[in-house]
Amino acid sequence: MEETKRETVTVCEVGPRDGLQMAKSTMATSQKQAWIAALAAAGLREIEVGSFVPARVIPQMADTEAVVREAVRISGLTVVALAPNLRGAQAAFAAGAHQVTVPVSVSEGHSRANLNRAPAEQVAEIARIAAWLKSQPRKLRLEAACSTAFGCSIDGVVSERQVVEVAIGLAKAGVDEVALCDTVGYAHPAQVRALIRTVRGEIGGVLQGLHLHDTMGLGLANALAGLEEGIRNFDSALGGLGGCPFAPGASGNIVTEDLVFMLESMGFETGINLDQLIAARGILREGLPEEALHGGVSRAGIPKTFRKAA
Amino acid sequence: MEETKRETVTVCEVGPRDGLQMAKSTMATSQKQAWIAALAAAGLREIEVGSFVPARVIPQMADTEAVVREAVRISGLTVVALAPNLRGAQAAFAAGAHQVTVPVSVSEGHSRANLNRAPAEQVAEIARIAAWLKSQPRKLRLEAACSTAFGCSIDGVVSERQVVEVAIGLAKAGVDEVALCDTVGYAHPAQVRALIRTVRGEIGGVLQGLHLHDTMGLGLANALAGLEEGIRNFDSALGGLGGCPFAPGASGNIVTEDLVFMLESMGFETGINLDQLIAARGILREGLPEEALHGGVSRAGIPKTFRKAA
Repeated sequence: MEETKRETVTVCEVGPRDGLQMAKSTMATSQKQAWIAALAAAGLREIEVGSFVPARVIPQMADTEAVVREAVRISGLTVVALAPNLRGAQAAFAAGAHQVTVPVSVSEGHSRANLNRAPAEQVAEIARIAAWLKSQPRKLRLEAACSTAFGCSIDGVVSERQVVEVAIGLAKAGVDEVALCDTVGYAHPAQVRALIRTVRGEIGGVLQGLHLHDTMGLGLANALAGLEEGIRNFDSALGGLGGCPFAPGASGNIVTEDLVFMLESMGFETGINLDQLIAARGILREGLPEEALHGGVSRAGIPKTFRKAA
Repeated sequence: MEETKRETVTVCEVGPRDGLQMAKSTMATSQKQAWIAALAAAGLREIEVGSFVPARVIPQMADTEAVVREAVRISGLTVVALAPNLRGAQAAFAAGAHQVTVPVSVSEGHSRANLNRAPAEQVAEIARIAAWLKSQPRKLRLEAACSTAFGCSIDGVVSERQVVEVAIGLAKAGVDEVALCDTVGYAHPAQVRALIRTVRGEIGGVLQGLHLHDTMGLGLANALAGLEEGIRNFDSALGGLGGCPFAPGASGNIVTEDLVFMLESMGFETGINLDQLIAARGILREGLPEEALHGGVSRAGIPKTFRKAA
C-alpha cells in the first residue's frame, strides 16, 4: 500500500560518461554495454552513456555512437549523451539518444579550459542547439548543465549573479531543463539551498537537476540540501567515479549506491534495487581494473534495518 | 563585524577515545598527549581523551588517567572521559576530567555485548553516578550517550519507543546532557530529524549531542539533518578514525576536518583553524602508522572559496 504513495526521485548514472573521462585506461565498448545493461537491470531509469566529443580530446568517448545505439534498445531507459556543441548534439540526435546534456561553465576560467569559449558564447551555442532541435521531427530533450556553479578551482568564487545570468540565458534559449553542477566539489549545504532558491526565483521549474562531486566529503549532505529544496533529479556515479580533466582538484561524483541508500531509506522511490546495483560494481571493476571504487554501503553491506520502519 | 554574529557549534573530538579503541597498535602516552595538544592548539574546545575501562578489555585506554591529568592543564579545553560505570566515573572525577560520558545502549544486543547489562540496568547505574556526582564538592558534567539509537548491527531495528524509554530514564536520573549515537552508522537524515524531534518532545533541552559514524557515507548528511533540527554539539574524529569493538560492521566516526569545513562554510563558528587541524593528522599518522586516515578536505586541500562569500 505504502509503495504507491512514495515520491519519485530520478537518479541519473553518469559513470559511463563523467566516470570514464578521467580513467587511466579505456573501457572496451562491449564492457561499457554490459555495465549499462547491468545498471538498467538494477533499475536505473536514466544513464548518461557517453559524450560526443572529438576522440582526440577524450579517447574514452570515441565509441559513444555505438554505445548510444545499443543503449536505446533497452526498454524503459532514458539514454542521455553529452555534447559540447551543435555538431555533437546533432550526432546525439542521429544516434537516437533521448536527451542531450550540453555543458556551460559559469566561470570564465573553466569555460575557457573546458570549451575554449566564454560562458556567453556557450549560451549562444546552446540557443542554436535548441533552435535546431525544435526544427526536427523527433523530440530530443535538451538539458543545460551549469558547470562550476558553486565555485571554480581556476577562478575561485563564482557569484550567484554569474549563475543567474547564465541560467536566464539558458531559459530564454528554450532548454528543457537546467542543472546546477558542483564540478569541483566546493559546494556546501547552505550554498546549495541558497543558489537553488535564487535560480528558481529567476527560471522557475526549468531548474531541475543537481550534479555533485564528493571532493570534500560533503556530497550527500549537499544532495540532502537539494532534496529539501525540492530537487528530484540527481546525477551520481557507481563507485564514485569521476572528475573533470579541465577542472584541477576535482574528485569523483557522489556515489550512486550511497545516494540510492539515502533516498530509499528516507522513503523516496528510485526504482533501483540496491543489491543489484552493488553487484554491478563487479562489471565496472573488471572493465577498469586500475580505478579505485568508493562507497560506504558496498563496503559495509546493506544494513539489516534498510527500508524497515524504525 | 560578521564574526561576532556567527552561531557557535561545538565539535567534540573523540579520536583519542573512540578512534583508538579499534586501532591495531597502541599509541604511546606521549604521542596521545602531543596529538591532544595539537588538536587543542588548532582550536578544538572539547576532546574526549580516553576511557576509564579495565586495561584488559581495551589496552589502548590503560593510560587514560595520565592522559586526562595532562590534558586538563591545557587552558580553555573541556576534557571529556568515557566511563562505563560508577567506578569509572569516580576515576574520571579523581583525575580531574571536566565531563564524563557514560554510554547506555538502547538495543539489548549491543548493551549485553558492550556492557554485559540490560539497558534498564545501565540507566540505573547512570542514576547512581548522577547521585554520587551531586554529592561531590566539585562539579563534573555528566553526559549519557545513547548507543545504537538509530539501529543495531546485532538487533537490527531500534524503535523510537525504545530510545524514548531510555532517554526519559536518563533525564529522570538527572544527567546534564543526552546524546544520540549512531554507533553502527545505520541512520539516515529523515530518521535523524524524526528521532531528535521525538526525544526532544520528551526530555527537551537535555538532548544536546549527536554522535555519528560514516559507515554508509551518510555521516555528514546526518549531521546536516541534526544541525537543521537545532543540534549544536557533534562528536567526530580526526581522519575518521573509530568504530566499536562490540558493534560488528561499524566503521569510523565522521571526519572532524570535513565536519569543520562544512560548519564553517555554512557560517557557523567552531573556533577551529582548519589548516592547523589538518596539520594535526601528521602526529596521528606518526602515532598510528598502520591506520588508514580518511577525509575529503585533507586530500583535496582547502578550496580557494573557503569562507569567502559566494
